[in-house]
Amino acid sequence: MSKSAKSFARKPAPDIAFDFSSGFGRGGITKALQNTYKKRLRLSLERVRREVANGELGFWKLPAVYGDKATLAPVRQAAKNLRSRFDNLVIIGIGGSALGARMLKDALAHPYHNELPDSKRKGMRLYLLENNDPAHFNALMSHLDLKRTVFNVVSKSGSTAETASQFILVRDILKRRFPDTWAQHLLFTTDPEKGILNKLAATDGIQTLDVPSDVGGRFSVLSPVGLLPALALGVDASKLLAGAEHMAQRCLSDSIADNPALAGALLHIIADQQLGRNMVVAFPYADGLKAWTEWFCQLWAESLGKAVDESGGEVHTGTTPIKTLGAIDQHSQMQLYMEGPDDKVFMFIRNESFGKPLAFPPKSRIPEALQYFAGHSMQELLLAEQTASRFALNEQKRMTYQVTLPKLDADTLGQLVFWAEAMTVFAGYLYGVNPFDQPGVELGKQFAYGLMGRAGFESFSRRIRGE
Amino acid sequence: MSKSAKSFARKPAPDIAFDFSSGFGRGGITKALQNTYKKRLRLSLERVRREVANGELGFWKLPAVYGDKATLAPVRQAAKNLRSRFDNLVIIGIGGSALGARMLKDALAHPYHNELPDSKRKGMRLYLLENNDPAHFNALMSHLDLKRTVFNVVSKSGSTAETASQFILVRDILKRRFPDTWAQHLLFTTDPEKGILNKLAATDGIQTLDVPSDVGGRFSVLSPVGLLPALALGVDASKLLAGAEHMAQRCLSDSIADNPALAGALLHIIADQQLGRNMVVAFPYADGLKAWTEWFCQLWAESLGKAVDESGGEVHTGTTPIKTLGAIDQHSQMQLYMEGPDDKVFMFIRNESFGKPLAFPPKSRIPEALQYFAGHSMQELLLAEQTASRFALNEQKRMTYQVTLPKLDADTLGQLVFWAEAMTVFAGYLYGVNPFDQPGVELGKQFAYGLMGRAGFESFSRRIRGE
Repeated sequence: MSKSAKSFARKPAPDIAFDFSSGFGRGGITKALQNTYKKRLRLSLERVRREVANGELGFWKLPAVYGDKATLAPVRQAAKNLRSRFDNLVIIGIGGSALGARMLKDALAHPYHNELPDSKRKGMRLYLLENNDPAHFNALMSHLDLKRTVFNVVSKSGSTAETASQFILVRDILKRRFPDTWAQHLLFTTDPEKGILNKLAATDGIQTLDVPSDVGGRFSVLSPVGLLPALALGVDASKLLAGAEHMAQRCLSDSIADNPALAGALLHIIADQQLGRNMVVAFPYADGLKAWTEWFCQLWAESLGKAVDESGGEVHTGTTPIKTLGAIDQHSQMQLYMEGPDDKVFMFIRNESFGKPLAFPPKSRIPEALQYFAGHSMQELLLAEQTASRFALNEQKRMTYQVTLPKLDADTLGQLVFWAEAMTVFAGYLYGVNPFDQPGVELGKQFAYGLMGRAGFESFSRRIRGE
Repeated sequence: MSKSAKSFARKPAPDIAFDFSSGFGRGGITKALQNTYKKRLRLSLERVRREVANGELGFWKLPAVYGDKATLAPVRQAAKNLRSRFDNLVIIGIGGSALGARMLKDALAHPYHNELPDSKRKGMRLYLLENNDPAHFNALMSHLDLKRTVFNVVSKSGSTAETASQFILVRDILKRRFPDTWAQHLLFTTDPEKGILNKLAATDGIQTLDVPSDVGGRFSVLSPVGLLPALALGVDASKLLAGAEHMAQRCLSDSIADNPALAGALLHIIADQQLGRNMVVAFPYADGLKAWTEWFCQLWAESLGKAVDESGGEVHTGTTPIKTLGAIDQHSQMQLYMEGPDDKVFMFIRNESFGKPLAFPPKSRIPEALQYFAGHSMQELLLAEQTASRFALNEQKRMTYQVTLPKLDADTLGQLVFWAEAMTVFAGYLYGVNPFDQPGVELGKQFAYGLMGRAGFESFSRRIRGE
């Protein structure tokens, strides 16, 4: 990994910083409590290190693998081709196949990217067909100029119902509209061997990109699943990967002080198991990180919410992630956070720089009652609010910690993404559960297949009908 | 109220329907458990009825008050004026001053409303300046054609920091850009008497609309706070109010079976206090209701998350609302919901009709592996998934209930909104807390003012600096 990492010419690192002091200190996690997790913590770290060394953790390899120019080249080339021939990129995907693209767009593209005229827009317009909501599907399809639109179907198996159902409709529309060239309006991102999309691609001459077989959906944003849309949007994918790789190195350290993924995992499991905090509030103060919280919520919930541990014992683990956005939710959720039950851990994410700080006008140009703003900037206000919110929660003995970004760009976002992934895996190992599976979603799927009359699922439809 | 209600010529009601059976039945709420709340329930209902009869519940009056043509007329006229002179409406507001507008746009406008060309767009483009995020502010201001833009500042007091800070910047930009006509680019929605905006409006000749003094932000969507943007968007405000008024009547019934607000409140309080469920998952299956969950989350969290009860006793009440969207979150949160701790109540919202059901192509036009979709529609699939998810959760003994909309339109949305408001108030009275205040947000504000150097808040900045 270190060899490939060299291919990045990384500038002096604008490291993201972590402050766990008010969790481990005043937040209630005593040294004695920490010590009771000492052995489990050591074993978890050893396991991660061993699995990383053996190349067994698929997602951990991604920053180095795609950081290699030769490996990234076909993705770059695919994005370049799309950009030269189309204006609109529509991702057909759901969950881990869509949330990463959404996060990257929110954090790194212009907030009104899709609305900008061509002259001001840096890359393709990006749309998502996630939910199989007929009203949304109809609206998007009638809105887009299909001649200028390419659809990227993202699914490892190709059989995810929401994705497959929208794909067959899109395919049918394209075939009728463009009888000779319809296949060029499609691009598949899928497992290189398994699944139904490869065969279709071969038959119909549709281009494909790979999701490595050993990487699951919610850990796949640093593979072509996220990199293709990133490049289509004009995002610097190399910087994203460099930031992630830098964090991957930090997360192998055996010192809690130097390893923010290990420290975070320890804080979360103690808060849950010993102190009754069954929720984690992802609380960034930056509009651009709103979709990051959605991405994180999948990662955390689906990885740690497990009925049985790795030895088969019934455990029902997992804390519930809550999407929150500062300062907006000071006017929505803060009342509950301050005065309600003490059942949450607060993960503040602070962005230190927003580009232009946006100075307020001088006193003479502000109505009298609001002149206290003069001499300050909007950035200063937002940062003051973040500091104040955390301080106020700490004063109520609520457990908080803080991640600080020197600024929000591809590099720091890469760090933030990889930190969350590594912390989630450490937490899984501390809980003793498998963070990479999702057996609990099968039952609902089977009932739905039964209701849809799919062959082989008749017993489920009978069960749901009470027969 | 009944007199004004007559001014609506309401068609045979497409009532939204409620199914609490798997909460009160298999969900664990026994008849005996219900009986222990009998007295509190009766007192809460009597209190609401008395307060409604005496006109003491400001928000309860809104559907009837604005349902009256004469009262709504100035709001209609204001919207008409804006529509004739501008293309873009920007709401400057946060929390209850913005979430209602966002909800109405998401549910009732085209999903790509702002992107549509004039010929296809039914009303004004609607943007929101909620968060004081400098990157977003800059991006929006440089994106819009200010000549064609009007800013609606929504704040009862006018001094909310996020709103005030963006307002003074916008005002300054407008004054320099349009020295003679800048005031016409502003519209204030504010308290008719208190607050700083009225004085400014009088001085500068800025038009104002009222937020009734006895209606708090999170209960204000059916006042001009929500009605002005609704009308600007081309939404049928009368239908919205008619649906709400219809629900207001239902929510005065003394029978649990006929009063879905009372039934819901009872279910929630028992689930929390007796069965350890400290979260409520708002789980609609319709893209258009995504922002409804954000609006609901404020309503629920800020109304019920209280440190002390009405007698001053320390209680720390409130369950935490969770935004979820089906089918998307089946691929994100469902694993945790199915297998993690049993600590949630699931509020499913089912939309029975999406307009076009969107039939899948016949078998001959679908790749072989996916032909089970043939003969079905996308709507059928989404509804099957909703049924299946709820059934699967019920099988795991998780507590669910369901609200069913015959379709999603202004009328049913009005019903859904008022139901949630009434249920929240009943829940507050059952908890014994004041659902209309928010004392817990003050401390954070004071710290922020201190950090910003505002006169009178010096002690807070000293405290935060550890002096």
